[in-house]
Amino acid sequence: MASSVETRISELGLTLPDAPAPAANYVPYVVSGNLVFISGQIAQDANGPIRGRLGADFDLEAGVRAAEACALALVAQAKAAAGGDLDRIARVVKLTAFVNSTADFTDQPKVVNGASDLLVKIFGDKGRHARAAVSAPSLPLGVAVEIDGIFELA
Amino acid sequence: MASSVETRISELGLTLPDAPAPAANYVPYVVSGNLVFISGQIAQDANGPIRGRLGADFDLEAGVRAAEACALALVAQAKAAAGGDLDRIARVVKLTAFVNSTADFTDQPKVVNGASDLLVKIFGDKGRHARAAVSAPSLPLGVAVEIDGIFELA
Amino acid sequence: MASSVETRISELGLTLPDAPAPAANYVPYVVSGNLVFISGQIAQDANGPIRGRLGADFDLEAGVRAAEACALALVAQAKAAAGGDLDRIARVVKLTAFVNSTADFTDQPKVVNGASDLLVKIFGDKGRHARAAVSAPSLPLGVAVEIDGIFELA
Repeated sequence: MASSVETRISELGLTLPDAPAPAANYVPYVVSGNLVFISGQIAQDANGPIRGRLGADFDLEAGVRAAEACALALVAQAKAAAGGDLDRIARVVKLTAFVNSTADFTDQPKVVNGASDLLVKIFGDKGRHARAAVSAPSLPLGVAVEIDGIFELA
Repeated sequence: MASSVETRISELGLTLPDAPAPAANYVPYVVSGNLVFISGQIAQDANGPIRGRLGADFDLEAGVRAAEACALALVAQAKAAAGGDLDRIARVVKLTAFVNSTADFTDQPKVVNGASDLLVKIFGDKGRHARAAVSAPSLPLGVAVEIDGIFELA
Repeated sequence: MASSVETRISELGLTLPDAPAPAANYVPYVVSGNLVFISGQIAQDANGPIRGRLGADFDLEAGVRAAEACALALVAQAKAAAGGDLDRIARVVKLTAFVNSTADFTDQPKVVNGASDLLVKIFGDKGRHARAAVSAPSLPLGVAVEIDGIFELA
């Protein structure tokens, strides 16, 4: 039987990606106590990395889509950390979001809302998190957004 | 009776801002165990966002003032998380500070000292924290500094 | 008798630096529960700060060396936090790595691998961590890399 969170993901018409494997000598997440520290997830979809820079070649709408992709990847990693059962996630605790930005782009929060809104849609009140939304002059592979996260296990 | 930390804040001639409400679908802080994860607080005062870029239109002194404003906002959020009683804060654990900087500005630590010094003035030894001070090419609303924090509750 | 982790550090031909003192009103680490939150460690060696920007005057190999220097400093701080006994480190939990980068440099992960690889060499499986690798347009003192960390004590 699908978990209630999994059911909601289906109802939203979303599909979790495979939990992306890290590209190097680190791991996608570490569980310490009941906290799950999840590695920075870069924006990517079935077509590969979602590349772009806000304020240059990438508009707000595209940025929101990129942030949603990061959030889905975080959920996929959280699912793995929870032994496959997303109902064991007690809370999304904190996101730190880096938006690939030109020096004159100042709408990082609106971009990162793509991730925040999606997590609340998926987890309900348990999805409401603390967050920081900042910019970076470049990101791995040229992606538009990278987000790491701390989740709490029940 | 005012708490001893509140008394110190008054003696320093400071006034805590109202704990700023988040601008989107997230929350100002999440408590997990005895840790409080506080969202990135942007520099703002009674006149609104404190905008500027270090190395360009904003000098070190102004940067220090901006970092102080972030610290005050963090304390306001910590107070809310502690049910209004700042004496329940056992420790300021960690700050991550982002300074809106040109590529040739390298005094991020001196800017962030505005926040660190203020927290030690307010909390005494409990205010001594670990921190990271880095730069960002831009920040939400064009503010000069954004700082998130982890505080520990007694 | 040297601890087994200390023995491995020696066998790798490495020497831990003195745990660098912070340059301001903060502390190198804070222990909360069994987590150690370590301040951002800038790249430096016996000759002082390792300055450079990836994509400009600093190549990948030099970036890897800078990241290694940050990792060694993190280990030195973790040792201090563990009362001098690195065998009390149960896990390297999370690194957040900032790479001083031009806007067109996108190999931050390869740079940060210098730190990740070294931690796994030193701690074995306990050294496998979650991480975020992003860029910054500038860093304190002009260093090439800054990395903060969360370690878990046994």
